[in-house]
Amino acid sequence: MHPEGSVLIEFGATRVLCTASVTEGVPRWRKGSGLGWLTAEYAMLPRATTTRSDRESVKGKIGGRTHEISRLIGRSLRACIDLKALGENSIVLDCDVLQADGGTRTAAITGAYVALHDAVAWLAAQRKLAGKPAEVLHRSVAAVSVGIIGGEPRLDLCYEEDVIADVDMNVVCTGAGDFVEVQGTGEQGVFSRAELDTLVDLGALGCTELAALQQKAIAG
Amino acid sequence: MHPEGSVLIEFGATRVLCTASVTEGVPRWRKGSGLGWLTAEYAMLPRATTTRSDRESVKGKIGGRTHEISRLIGRSLRACIDLKALGENSIVLDCDVLQADGGTRTAAITGAYVALHDAVAWLAAQRKLAGKPAEVLHRSVAAVSVGIIGGEPRLDLCYEEDVIADVDMNVVCTGAGDFVEVQGTGEQGVFSRAELDTLVDLGALGCTELAALQQKAIAG
Amino acid sequence: MHPEGSVLIEFGATRVLCTASVTEGVPRWRKGSGLGWLTAEYAMLPRATTTRSDRESVKGKIGGRTHEISRLIGRSLRACIDLKALGENSIVLDCDVLQADGGTRTAAITGAYVALHDAVAWLAAQRKLAGKPAEVLHRSVAAVSVGIIGGEPRLDLCYEEDVIADVDMNVVCTGAGDFVEVQGTGEQGVFSRAELDTLVDLGALGCTELAALQQKAIAG
Amino acid sequence: MHPEGSVLIEFGATRVLCTASVTEGVPRWRKGSGLGWLTAEYAMLPRATTTRSDRESVKGKIGGRTHEISRLIGRSLRACIDLKALGENSIVLDCDVLQADGGTRTAAITGAYVALHDAVAWLAAQRKLAGKPAEVLHRSVAAVSVGIIGGEPRLDLCYEEDVIADVDMNVVCTGAGDFVEVQGTGEQGVFSRAELDTLVDLGALGCTELAALQQKAIAG
Amino acid sequence: MHPEGSVLIEFGATRVLCTASVTEGVPRWRKGSGLGWLTAEYAMLPRATTTRSDRESVKGKIGGRTHEISRLIGRSLRACIDLKALGENSIVLDCDVLQADGGTRTAAITGAYVALHDAVAWLAAQRKLAGKPAEVLHRSVAAVSVGIIGGEPRLDLCYEEDVIADVDMNVVCTGAGDFVEVQGTGEQGVFSRAELDTLVDLGALGCTELAALQQKAIAG
Amino acid sequence: MHPEGSVLIEFGATRVLCTASVTEGVPRWRKGSGLGWLTAEYAMLPRATTTRSDRESVKGKIGGRTHEISRLIGRSLRACIDLKALGENSIVLDCDVLQADGGTRTAAITGAYVALHDAVAWLAAQRKLAGKPAEVLHRSVAAVSVGIIGGEPRLDLCYEEDVIADVDMNVVCTGAGDFVEVQGTGEQGVFSRAELDTLVDLGALGCTELAALQQKAIAG
Repeated sequence: MHPEGSVLIEFGATRVLCTASVTEGVPRWRKGSGLGWLTAEYAMLPRATTTRSDRESVKGKIGGRTHEISRLIGRSLRACIDLKALGENSIVLDCDVLQADGGTRTAAITGAYVALHDAVAWLAAQRKLAGKPAEVLHRSVAAVSVGIIGGEPRLDLCYEEDVIADVDMNVVCTGAGDFVEVQGTGEQGVFSRAELDTLVDLGALGCTELAALQQKAIAG
Repeated sequence: MHPEGSVLIEFGATRVLCTASVTEGVPRWRKGSGLGWLTAEYAMLPRATTTRSDRESVKGKIGGRTHEISRLIGRSLRACIDLKALGENSIVLDCDVLQADGGTRTAAITGAYVALHDAVAWLAAQRKLAGKPAEVLHRSVAAVSVGIIGGEPRLDLCYEEDVIADVDMNVVCTGAGDFVEVQGTGEQGVFSRAELDTLVDLGALGCTELAALQQKAIAG
Repeated sequence: MHPEGSVLIEFGATRVLCTASVTEGVPRWRKGSGLGWLTAEYAMLPRATTTRSDRESVKGKIGGRTHEISRLIGRSLRACIDLKALGENSIVLDCDVLQADGGTRTAAITGAYVALHDAVAWLAAQRKLAGKPAEVLHRSVAAVSVGIIGGEPRLDLCYEEDVIADVDMNVVCTGAGDFVEVQGTGEQGVFSRAELDTLVDLGALGCTELAALQQKAIAG
Repeated sequence: MHPEGSVLIEFGATRVLCTASVTEGVPRWRKGSGLGWLTAEYAMLPRATTTRSDRESVKGKIGGRTHEISRLIGRSLRACIDLKALGENSIVLDCDVLQADGGTRTAAITGAYVALHDAVAWLAAQRKLAGKPAEVLHRSVAAVSVGIIGGEPRLDLCYEEDVIADVDMNVVCTGAGDFVEVQGTGEQGVFSRAELDTLVDLGALGCTELAALQQKAIAG
Repeated sequence: MHPEGSVLIEFGATRVLCTASVTEGVPRWRKGSGLGWLTAEYAMLPRATTTRSDRESVKGKIGGRTHEISRLIGRSLRACIDLKALGENSIVLDCDVLQADGGTRTAAITGAYVALHDAVAWLAAQRKLAGKPAEVLHRSVAAVSVGIIGGEPRLDLCYEEDVIADVDMNVVCTGAGDFVEVQGTGEQGVFSRAELDTLVDLGALGCTELAALQQKAIAG
Repeated sequence: MHPEGSVLIEFGATRVLCTASVTEGVPRWRKGSGLGWLTAEYAMLPRATTTRSDRESVKGKIGGRTHEISRLIGRSLRACIDLKALGENSIVLDCDVLQADGGTRTAAITGAYVALHDAVAWLAAQRKLAGKPAEVLHRSVAAVSVGIIGGEPRLDLCYEEDVIADVDMNVVCTGAGDFVEVQGTGEQGVFSRAELDTLVDLGALGCTELAALQQKAIAG
């Protein structure tokens, strides 16, 4: 009801509530630059997972994993926005995982793009953008996780698959098929150049499909 | 998907996700007492409200309002459970406000009871209770906010009404119509003995209606 | 020696040092509003209680109970002050429990009113009030705890009584007998409508007696 | 009422409430050593000073000055106790400044000794000491501040004097006239060997007088 | 002098002090598993950079960047150690940047491997390993940053280059040329499949050179 | 490479990296006063000591010992600088212990003076000082630890000596032989007036030697 943009994205059993909050103006150190500002925050509800995890607010500090994912989402979404065309407006993307079953960070990026699109449309309707909406959001961005399980490449791993994967990779692509970010980790070991190629290609393919679904969601 | 009990309660535009998480055993200082343990945690998503509020995890501390409401929910739900019959099991009730429009704490209590009921049923199915389910949850509990606006008593205030209320009261009752907690505040001023009576009676009535809805939800 | 208003209140063995600190000006977000500001902070010395409790400064965070009581004191005292007549001045009420034996929050409210009265008189003497002193502090406020022990209603519970009470209620009233805040909790169970009436009436009576003592203290 | 030892010490307008809290047993890492444990914590009420200072519990961290003084009090009092004769008991000395007018740390040490004496007597009465009381507390300890103002040496500086002092020294001595700790600082500049001698002698003299007052307080 | 393994690595003007600290035993939750434990912590001295940055200890919390890099170093080094052959010993790798000029995280990984090698040799000399040294450290690991600047691929970017790079990639490889981790980011934009290939190959080549230098350092 | 002044000081096996960071301007509350500002921060790398200690950034708070030493360094260095002649510039002295073997705080003070000297020279070269360099840094300052071990006075205690010392004293002197700070503690007991004299004289002597070495370092 309240946010300028919001979407509840589902990747399998994973559910992430992505909202985009707009405020006029930018942080003090950026005033007068003519540039906008975009950040992202990721969090999990305590019982989004199989067993309950303590709240980071109760622990009094944010864990390394949360920080790492928030930064990834922020970088990915900044890749598709022109901060000059946005003008001196700030957008915060909140990605809260209601239910987790693998791929929460890639679901968050994919959903946050749609919420961001709504927020830019809202700003356009309020005539608060410095440029045209199409200049502001000059690309779309989507993300997917890929992995190798028992020698077999797999797209969009669920939690059970993620745990047993030999290699795990997150691929973030634009709608045009270029790469924004690629993060591959040999969870249980190491990976060869050939495996890297397979995973990158599979991830890029997955992002293309997601880009089509994003366009549908925006159009709908 | 994951929690032992969970419910998404709606009071007007207010939406609270209530989950009950069960773990075997109790905190160390309570071991060997034969008694179970029940706590509650309340939180709001940053954009549940009209304007975005900073995450308490980012601020590194929990605010007074959050503490106060978490404690209220915990006290209210402990009033309907027999910790001896529960046996040495721990239950955490998480109430996360996805969208706020007044009455979030009373919605949280009302929803948490249903989630708790499911969790006790789950424990019964696992044969982990010390007593019978009906002994464990020997009462139901529901809560509602009431207020006086321009001299007029109102049930279940939305945010707009809450802001302008002269008096604001939260009433927590059992299904049998007894009181568990009554908190009345003269937000804009003070209130007379007669106004207090009106609000208490209206709140008790509201709780009776909610108790019927809870039974339906549990039965359904 | 230092504060603009200060009082050491004793309720039985309970001793609370209440001070009122005045500063010219208000927090930045309130500047230019013409309104003053009043907050309260409650704390206990580590050995105010039977067994020593760790300092909240050492733990690095304020507990829920402290937050809840500080908020209650602040709300209660704001009910008796006209922030417009106060002008753009800020008052902080510090209530530090030196020795605790039940009823510390109600003692704090009752004592804080007297300290506040002195601080307003000090501001008047300095000619810093926007209105007249009688407009600024247009009501008095006092508080008392009441409870039911073994079916018997009791006024101003000491710690031992508080622990065994079936119902526990804090009543905050103005000198004119109106209610500012009523908080009743079924500590060991629940309470009926009749019991609620008994407690509310007993609390109101207790507040009337305290109001007379406050007037004496101020006059003296 | 509650602590095993407690004293309200006054040095001029300075008032410090010193309590000694005894618990049986020692921290886990010290168990089985046969040695006791003694620590001290110093704090100021927010309005003990001319202008109100924020609570360290609210700021969420303890300042450098508080840390430094707590450590000094702990070291000084450990110099007069035999931890072996104390046996596996723990004592916490809390020194809370109710009103400050210079010399709060030296007043705290001097008062804490008296509170500690009471606590050791209490342990003796409970037959919980490993040695005899006179072995446990084999020395007395007292402290005083001295300074040079406009070339003139002064004993026990009040706040106003402390601010303008050229040199400021805290001297902690045993009842037998030996030194436990000497801390001299050239606040506004530096000091010569001769000035150091003058201050040390004056401080030792002051401690001797305090030792006599401590004996009286204990005897009385 | 003190650590079981330590090395001061220099990549251009970047200087990172890497130490490996060994303690017998593992965290409680891992006891009896027969497995060892390895973690890493990365930090920068406040003036390692062009302008001074505040200490994270003073700010009271660790930033996202620090968390992210500490986690990357830990994952990378765990890829080259067999925790079963290590036995129930814990190793902490501390990587403290004394002077920063780009590539601090890759320098830290490369240096930490050498410190780890020394620590494993120390454990072997103490006969505290469950397996043979060659089984414990069954691979070597090294890391390098690569980037594209003005269309040109570059190896081991200094700070100035890092800032203007279009694409920035960190590549972590084993001595055998397999990949442990690949993280590529389009800092100023996006990158094509061909650019990804160029960077991955260049990074792998750089790691091979570093692996040779590591062998020399260990042998020497 | 980066700091305006920096020095790596060695006292025996103790190694402290001291840097001086200059920023134009002063904290907001000091603006317009015409006075500069100087603070110091002391820290230890986790494995500077025999066994690893946890990072204060990870623990989320700064310990009492760190606070105490940072304050001592700041006070000592402010004794040799004229903040008026410095003009509205701020200098932060960071003293990071890379390897510890006793006397880290006195090494830090002695090294920080040299770094400060370089920073003042840098400011002079930039023509940013309000006064002449010789007015700004009108004294030199150096520090040394002294102690009594088995009745024998010793200069510059290493860690092993420090642990067994009966008395431990830190002496901070100017190049002219005046005292800036004297802190003596009876670690294992107490000390007489005669012992105090011996230690003070020995410390002053040590500082004179260090002052000569500082002049050489600055000249070189």
